[in-house]
Amino acid sequence: MSLALHTDRYQLTMLAAYARTGLAERRAAFELFVRRLPPSRRFLVACGVGRAVEALRELRFSSDDLAWLEADSFLGPAFRHRSVRDLFERFRFRGRVLAVPEGRVCFPGEPLLRVEGTLAEAQLVETLLLSIINHDTRVASKCARIVLAARGRDCFEFGTRRTHEHAAVAAARAAWIAGFAGTSNEEAARRWGVPVSGTMAHAFVLAHAADHGEEGERASFEAFAETFEVPATALVDTFDTLRGVDRAIAASNGARTSRPSIGGVRIDSGDLATLALHARTRLDVAGMAGTRIVLSDDLDEHRIDALTRGHVPVDAFGVGTMAVATPDAPSLGAVYKLVALEDAAGRLVAVQKRSSGKGSSAGPKQVFRSGLDDAGLEDVVGVDGEPLPGEPVLQEVFGPRVGVDLSAAAARARCAADLALLPARLRSIDPRGGDEDFPVRKSAALTALHDTVDREGRAVL
Amino acid sequence: MSLALHTDRYQLTMLAAYARTGLAERRAAFELFVRRLPPSRRFLVACGVGRAVEALRELRFSSDDLAWLEADSFLGPAFRHRSVRDLFERFRFRGRVLAVPEGRVCFPGEPLLRVEGTLAEAQLVETLLLSIINHDTRVASKCARIVLAARGRDCFEFGTRRTHEHAAVAAARAAWIAGFAGTSNEEAARRWGVPVSGTMAHAFVLAHAADHGEEGERASFEAFAETFEVPATALVDTFDTLRGVDRAIAASNGARTSRPSIGGVRIDSGDLATLALHARTRLDVAGMAGTRIVLSDDLDEHRIDALTRGHVPVDAFGVGTMAVATPDAPSLGAVYKLVALEDAAGRLVAVQKRSSGKGSSAGPKQVFRSGLDDAGLEDVVGVDGEPLPGEPVLQEVFGPRVGVDLSAAAARARCAADLALLPARLRSIDPRGGDEDFPVRKSAALTALHDTVDREGRAVL
Repeated sequence: MSLALHTDRYQLTMLAAYARTGLAERRAAFELFVRRLPPSRRFLVACGVGRAVEALRELRFSSDDLAWLEADSFLGPAFRHRSVRDLFERFRFRGRVLAVPEGRVCFPGEPLLRVEGTLAEAQLVETLLLSIINHDTRVASKCARIVLAARGRDCFEFGTRRTHEHAAVAAARAAWIAGFAGTSNEEAARRWGVPVSGTMAHAFVLAHAADHGEEGERASFEAFAETFEVPATALVDTFDTLRGVDRAIAASNGARTSRPSIGGVRIDSGDLATLALHARTRLDVAGMAGTRIVLSDDLDEHRIDALTRGHVPVDAFGVGTMAVATPDAPSLGAVYKLVALEDAAGRLVAVQKRSSGKGSSAGPKQVFRSGLDDAGLEDVVGVDGEPLPGEPVLQEVFGPRVGVDLSAAAARARCAADLALLPARLRSIDPRGGDEDFPVRKSAALTALHDTVDREGRAVL
Repeated sequence: MSLALHTDRYQLTMLAAYARTGLAERRAAFELFVRRLPPSRRFLVACGVGRAVEALRELRFSSDDLAWLEADSFLGPAFRHRSVRDLFERFRFRGRVLAVPEGRVCFPGEPLLRVEGTLAEAQLVETLLLSIINHDTRVASKCARIVLAARGRDCFEFGTRRTHEHAAVAAARAAWIAGFAGTSNEEAARRWGVPVSGTMAHAFVLAHAADHGEEGERASFEAFAETFEVPATALVDTFDTLRGVDRAIAASNGARTSRPSIGGVRIDSGDLATLALHARTRLDVAGMAGTRIVLSDDLDEHRIDALTRGHVPVDAFGVGTMAVATPDAPSLGAVYKLVALEDAAGRLVAVQKRSSGKGSSAGPKQVFRSGLDDAGLEDVVGVDGEPLPGEPVLQEVFGPRVGVDLSAAAARARCAADLALLPARLRSIDPRGGDEDFPVRKSAALTALHDTVDREGRAVL
């Protein structure tokens, strides 16, 4: 499905104006980047490129789209010009995209994406790319901190109800890439291969209480166990959490099946640390040492850090609101700026915006990374093509020579590798400081280019 | 398109278990409500019901959906039972939904939605309803504050790039319902009839600088004016805002058209109040008193309030991040709880959850509203069917007797009417206090019902 109209109106007016003024076919490069880290954050996890590439492949104006635009009182009259009509009718994204591969750690001031193509095609995709990359990178960057705080325990993304019904699918994918063990979102499983899990809500327990009052809780666990062949997680806090644990134990022992029917208990309210300790003891005494304890209830990296530091017996966390709404940084301000354009003489020229506090950084760039570990992680942002040491981070993700595995599984592996090597000061979730202390500098050549553009308004590349 | 798999896995496991245990067809009622207001908020604007009703109408499991579920190692084996297979294959939502009509002001502790139907159908829709209502109500509630702060000036929603590409369409709809004048999102215009506008990005100005340096700014305004027949808004802060205003004036005077080509200027950075004052003077001196000034740049209700209180010459605001990411309240915690269920004897029984700090409120309820004005707004939450004075707020929105216009335009009119009548203390955007001071109480009959359920675990209705 094409998302051609899932965009800001001004992309469409600009497209028409580029067609009319003959700029549409000029070679251009845009870059997508974040100006600054959210407060107390120390890194970002690049995410969304896999989804963006799929959207770019499908991008075109359907006959319905065109009919809609032609009927518009502002845009419509421009379609009387053949150049405008042709540009919209024939539109396909045929450019080239380089990106920080999904799952990799990155920092402000580094391009997350560079889009090269005609001015028309590279401009039109701005809003769509920003929507996708801002959303997915925001979620993945938060979830990576939650994974670090969990110290090896599983985290499951349960946030579908706290975000838009389609955003939820992308959020589940981003959380998985960041290292979550799975999601509750069924569509994310089908669409992106994210492991999915989930058993019962409080309503299921309550439904059995209509006949039996609170004792119906045990009946609910038994009913569940009889429906499925795999041991399930019982939600034990509908009435009284520890009585709920006892009923889960009773249901497991009394099940009309030959196998243990309760594989875990989930506690979703109250003093999680104390309840988990008591639940563990009761399960162990009942001979159910293998039964897992899952905790949830507005958990974020700080509450999870406290639980895992405190040696609370917990096997997994369910994380909803904090993973998808990321309240400490509820939006990511990535922007998409023209960095180079062909001039009338056919030369590629570096340009930049100078708006107060919102300037851009001229010229196509590459990031060269050295030593992603305590010894000395350093990213140098240089002019594209500069012979600098270190690993070039931006890779082609759309175009003739795609050099990176675009699957979510590959992204997840890259994220785990980067997080494992991240210096301790960057892995820290300490809310004090951090957001200005990241290891990125500009190369001498890039600084010189910017000086020229500052002085002369543009610089021939 | 059916969103049957855009849900939490546990809705599907519960559906299977209800089928197996014979509970699926029992009559049930669930309610969707918010437990507390976000800090310093004083009201909510109900939003999303129009989208929810469309989703409920389309809800079914396609053959692809069923094949996916049957192949699952946990869920799949349950499909060998005919009762389970039949329930999924024949699933349609045939229940009844009552809701606070979209656009109306509402408060915590009041049901926003009541869903009545079989336990199976009313349970399955939980996640989808929460995703839609939580998202749309969150955005509309924030945008209503922005509209109040704008004191009659137009607000335009520009946040598409700061949220997921599909969430953006719903956010534009919610902002419009809350009183925004329009959106930049093209799909929201087509899908929901929201007025759409937008002209140029900084890249458009920069593209003309490749040949001419900063002087290309004027050429960019002229190029735009020559493409369209309607006066457009010039973005004037790419290089130097006041020089940008001068170039807009020059472009308008020099346009090769007989009409004024510049209808407005937009300032997106810097000291907005000072720049707007200078821009207004220059435009007036140039005889362009009718040219509008549009301000944007991370504006929220507090910054807009300061600008409109300060008599800054501004005609309209562009609001992006703050409208769609709502950073002071980035998620809305509405929940969906079973409030009544048919028991084995065929009686409808009120039930409630008691989890620490996360209890629910038993029994199907109605909200009776009196005097939505300073004289004494009061909402009384009573048991459904209770003969209480005041206007019943919940109306049927899905079922045999829909009694409310579900269009976004009707919702927008309701919101404007409610906001106009809202008492001054609730209209206030003062960040100090407010979130606990809202005018809702329970009826005596509802209190008595809850006492019974607290004591006996359930109460026959």
